[in-house]
Amino acid sequence: MIVNTNSGGIADRLEIASARISSFIQTTPLLKSDYLNDRLQCNLFIKAENLQRTGSFKIRGALNKTLASTSDESASHLLTWSSGNHGAALAEVAQDLGIPASVVVPPWIPKVKVDNILSRGADVYTASDTQDVVKMGKSIAARLGAVVIPAYDDISVIDGQATVTLELLSQFSETNNGSAPDALIYPCGGGSLIAGAALVVGHSPIALLGAEPTAAADTKRSLLAGEPCEAPDVGITICDALRNRRPGALTFDLMRQSVRDVLLVDDACVEAAMRVLFRHFKLVTEPGGAIAFAAVLSEIRSFRDKSVVAVISGGNVSHEQFAKVIQADNEVRAW
Amino acid sequence: MIVNTNSGGIADRLEIASARISSFIQTTPLLKSDYLNDRLQCNLFIKAENLQRTGSFKIRGALNKTLASTSDESASHLLTWSSGNHGAALAEVAQDLGIPASVVVPPWIPKVKVDNILSRGADVYTASDTQDVVKMGKSIAARLGAVVIPAYDDISVIDGQATVTLELLSQFSETNNGSAPDALIYPCGGGSLIAGAALVVGHSPIALLGAEPTAAADTKRSLLAGEPCEAPDVGITICDALRNRRPGALTFDLMRQSVRDVLLVDDACVEAAMRVLFRHFKLVTEPGGAIAFAAVLSEIRSFRDKSVVAVISGGNVSHEQFAKVIQADNEVRAW
Repeated sequence: MIVNTNSGGIADRLEIASARISSFIQTTPLLKSDYLNDRLQCNLFIKAENLQRTGSFKIRGALNKTLASTSDESASHLLTWSSGNHGAALAEVAQDLGIPASVVVPPWIPKVKVDNILSRGADVYTASDTQDVVKMGKSIAARLGAVVIPAYDDISVIDGQATVTLELLSQFSETNNGSAPDALIYPCGGGSLIAGAALVVGHSPIALLGAEPTAAADTKRSLLAGEPCEAPDVGITICDALRNRRPGALTFDLMRQSVRDVLLVDDACVEAAMRVLFRHFKLVTEPGGAIAFAAVLSEIRSFRDKSVVAVISGGNVSHEQFAKVIQADNEVRAW
Repeated sequence: MIVNTNSGGIADRLEIASARISSFIQTTPLLKSDYLNDRLQCNLFIKAENLQRTGSFKIRGALNKTLASTSDESASHLLTWSSGNHGAALAEVAQDLGIPASVVVPPWIPKVKVDNILSRGADVYTASDTQDVVKMGKSIAARLGAVVIPAYDDISVIDGQATVTLELLSQFSETNNGSAPDALIYPCGGGSLIAGAALVVGHSPIALLGAEPTAAADTKRSLLAGEPCEAPDVGITICDALRNRRPGALTFDLMRQSVRDVLLVDDACVEAAMRVLFRHFKLVTEPGGAIAFAAVLSEIRSFRDKSVVAVISGGNVSHEQFAKVIQADNEVRAW
């Protein structure tokens, strides 16, 4: 279901992406808690992409780009740079296709995410500084003759991520008498997930919203400035998947056309949301994966009597961190 | 997809049950981990009924029985006795229908399960001894003029639980070129879930298996004895949902006709399975909910190159217990 009325060739492209990756991916469920919705006075749904292969939506874009890149000529090596989830996704895709892979990561990547890459047989190169990741990636790619599969700023990657939105709109329609939701909300890291949603939703009446950490508000700032720019002070946030410093050029351009607002969420709200997702949805989420849901809970008055879908983008969290979050402060919220 | 070739009127009855409850329940996903399956050399799927409304499959049977019981005449009160998940399910059904509900529980019921009942507006009566639960339930039901919705030993409840199996066979067929799995495995408490599966599977070539705690092996013993009997020594197990002392008369009769074997699993294996479900499936499970999956992992050689569906029956676990399990001994298994 493409609801973008100015879609041009987009619909065809997204149909190709869907067909290309469908046999490789999990159809993840659209879930709701009637118990919670009664109390929130909201028709809130979540799209559980933490249940996707490799524990995040990232495999959709990695698959679409890799299959598109290797359809004409075979690749002898695949390479990317990533804060973790895209790296694990690419490692799994490479293993499926029998191609060696390498992933360049920043120094602060959580151990659980390095393990997810290594356990899928890819090589990991750790840059000594976040600023050096891209340079290091390009240099190793040149040396290995590797095909680079970017994490977000690439149209084939964005098309792959757009299938999340195609899928959730179709699921929403099936269980809601053919209707569309009032709002969709996505985490904003590099921006490929919400840029994909922009391709699907375009200028339809569906409100397209982003969510990002208060301490890494590069997307919010860029949209206000009208051009991709760095957040003034990227501070420390538990949302490791969303710590990038600026949106991509392409993802920004797509967001600028369709994203109505980006909601800022602090870490305490993210942790509270992870507890609600544990208790009422039985889901394991990583902090960045829970932020869109956290944004809805934080601004629940704005969503009263609306139907909203929050995308849960990932669940790659260490057992130590998850145990700490679910045990902390568990009684703060009535729900 | 009914594969029971001697189904008689069963197919019609299950079709009615499915249609009756479909708009009230969540279609839960059939999930697999390609990563894990490569390592296990098994085509293992899980049916994630922990993502069902109220966090367990129990709402299916509670809905089917309640809607069937109240279709002719309205009920002024609903009542049941339960170790927790059926109680919460009935409380939510009662709330949907605007009928008061009461639940009688054993003294050892986990607090998280009492909270799940109370927070849905039902009254909870706690018996001082497990043996007194049924008597207390019957007495309160008589006093209130309540309609009793049994937890397992009732054909309408069993028909409702059978929809889990209808759904998973249909999902399996869709993603596996129209084929059926080699084996299905279910937790055995009172037996309604696996008795429902027996209705669907009948004497087809699909191997129907149960799983229960070594310390509460009443189903295994009953099947060996050829009649429902109590386990010799029901010891302590963390699988609180599976602690009942004997199968139902009706559930036993259905199991006896179709269940090939019941695998016994100790608590340490259940905890290991909960960790695998946390790490590779991003799911929160309660111990009893993870036991069928644990049984497959424990006997993985018997399932080599087979396609197996393990039903995850529930996820109602306290944050304290879940945190403890995921942090304990996390490196024991390679996967």
